[in-house]
Amino acid sequence: MELIDGKKISQEIKQEIAMQVQSILAEGGKRPTLAAILVGHDGGSETYVANKIKACEECGFNSRLIRFESDVTEDKLLEAIRQLNDDDEVDGFIVQLPLPKHISEQRVIETIDYHKDVDGFHPVNVGRMAIGLPCFKSATPAGIMMLLERYNIPTSGKRAVVLGRSNIVGKPVATLLMQKGYPGNATVTVCHSATDNIKEICREADIIIAALGQPGFVKADMVKPGATVIDVGTTRVPDSTRKSGYRLSGDVDFENVAPLCSYITPVPGGVGPMTITSLMRNTLLAASKSVYE
Amino acid sequence: MELIDGKKISQEIKQEIAMQVQSILAEGGKRPTLAAILVGHDGGSETYVANKIKACEECGFNSRLIRFESDVTEDKLLEAIRQLNDDDEVDGFIVQLPLPKHISEQRVIETIDYHKDVDGFHPVNVGRMAIGLPCFKSATPAGIMMLLERYNIPTSGKRAVVLGRSNIVGKPVATLLMQKGYPGNATVTVCHSATDNIKEICREADIIIAALGQPGFVKADMVKPGATVIDVGTTRVPDSTRKSGYRLSGDVDFENVAPLCSYITPVPGGVGPMTITSLMRNTLLAASKSVYE
Repeated sequence: MELIDGKKISQEIKQEIAMQVQSILAEGGKRPTLAAILVGHDGGSETYVANKIKACEECGFNSRLIRFESDVTEDKLLEAIRQLNDDDEVDGFIVQLPLPKHISEQRVIETIDYHKDVDGFHPVNVGRMAIGLPCFKSATPAGIMMLLERYNIPTSGKRAVVLGRSNIVGKPVATLLMQKGYPGNATVTVCHSATDNIKEICREADIIIAALGQPGFVKADMVKPGATVIDVGTTRVPDSTRKSGYRLSGDVDFENVAPLCSYITPVPGGVGPMTITSLMRNTLLAASKSVYE
Repeated sequence: MELIDGKKISQEIKQEIAMQVQSILAEGGKRPTLAAILVGHDGGSETYVANKIKACEECGFNSRLIRFESDVTEDKLLEAIRQLNDDDEVDGFIVQLPLPKHISEQRVIETIDYHKDVDGFHPVNVGRMAIGLPCFKSATPAGIMMLLERYNIPTSGKRAVVLGRSNIVGKPVATLLMQKGYPGNATVTVCHSATDNIKEICREADIIIAALGQPGFVKADMVKPGATVIDVGTTRVPDSTRKSGYRLSGDVDFENVAPLCSYITPVPGGVGPMTITSLMRNTLLAASKSVYE
């Protein structure tokens, strides 16, 4: 069993990005800039945004944080988005989700200029990814594909089972895994809450992508010996022994599943760091006009 | 075994559409209008477009055919598309594919205003379908879903195997089958040219959607007794006994597979007529602003 070290790969990629930024600057180009809009003070969101800003520093990007209180009107938020759309200094930006209930997330996402949509949530980017055209791929699925690639995990002709059909992980990672090329060409099955015999289906898998948000869902009797298991779950579980009062729990019963696997991602330190690194990669692609002219 | 009569269902739906058009006109609304751009004189394309115009008449739509010779420049074609985008009389339009090699199909598709993209090929419509938002669903996948619905074929929790990963059938029908609601909630596996053990995978399927374009690919030993088989293949096979010199061949060895099935579509007369009917339905939705305001 080999542990897939998302933290290490993530560091490597950020260093590669930082070197590319150095080249851009040496050639007289401008420093890539990522902006983030944060609404309210949700603990998880604060942490994510802080980590994104830290990653920008590691990559040599400029970053900009725009904060609103949680009672901000939708109009005011959309206005801020339009300003970022028009701001030539900003190469890409994100609006940290979730948003307060009085704001339509979909309207927010669709107001972002897709040329700057480095989260890859805009329908144009989602559609272009489905078709196989250049686009900003959403961060978690792209991060998973980078892990498979960096560890040279075979995917062509392999059975991949994706647990979960969310718009931000399950569906897009299924699309990427089935597309031509490497890492892709897998035979992909998507399981979800309405699936029968999920255990039997998982047991056929060479690659399991667990993205249900159900702590410990994938048990040892669901995993074929030699499988690769990618755990996307990051549920906060109360834990009085931790200073924070919680720990992150993946969708996989790691202790019992890991001994069976060829490769497995830990939680934390697996897919999580890759998500932020994918965002950095998308920002570099935006700044260098590599996706859209 | 029950034959899924796409021709009959298609007639029924066109009659329903025609009645809705009557109501629109009775309320002082305008007659829906579909335009089609046809480049060159390819026999298949001529037939498809003629059938689409005939279907418009059956539905009570106005239709408009815009023809170009096959040496038309891309610029001239794009200009014609922009004129249709701006033409308030036209609710929706299509550009019949394939196009001559000197014209970028993707540029053509992306030039169509997605509000009028009743083929559902524009990235915005593809992306919105993937996310599960209101959109123009591409015609063949939507037609397949209508057949499942009209025959009350159970899909929830069922194993569906999609053969083929094309942008116009395989990938979108997989997306629709896995989405929440009916007909959906299926556990979907997508197989393609890189898939190993395709026979074994098909044998697990409650529903097979064959969209490979390989005549007679699905044999009796690939089908579980009681399965539903939807044949999307329409390959022209030379046949000297026919006046036309060819016959349409599906992806399924119908003669030997049909006796095993609960439901099966014939070729022709199965999915084919539904594709055009889906286009009519999208045109009605465009005219009544039911998808986009």
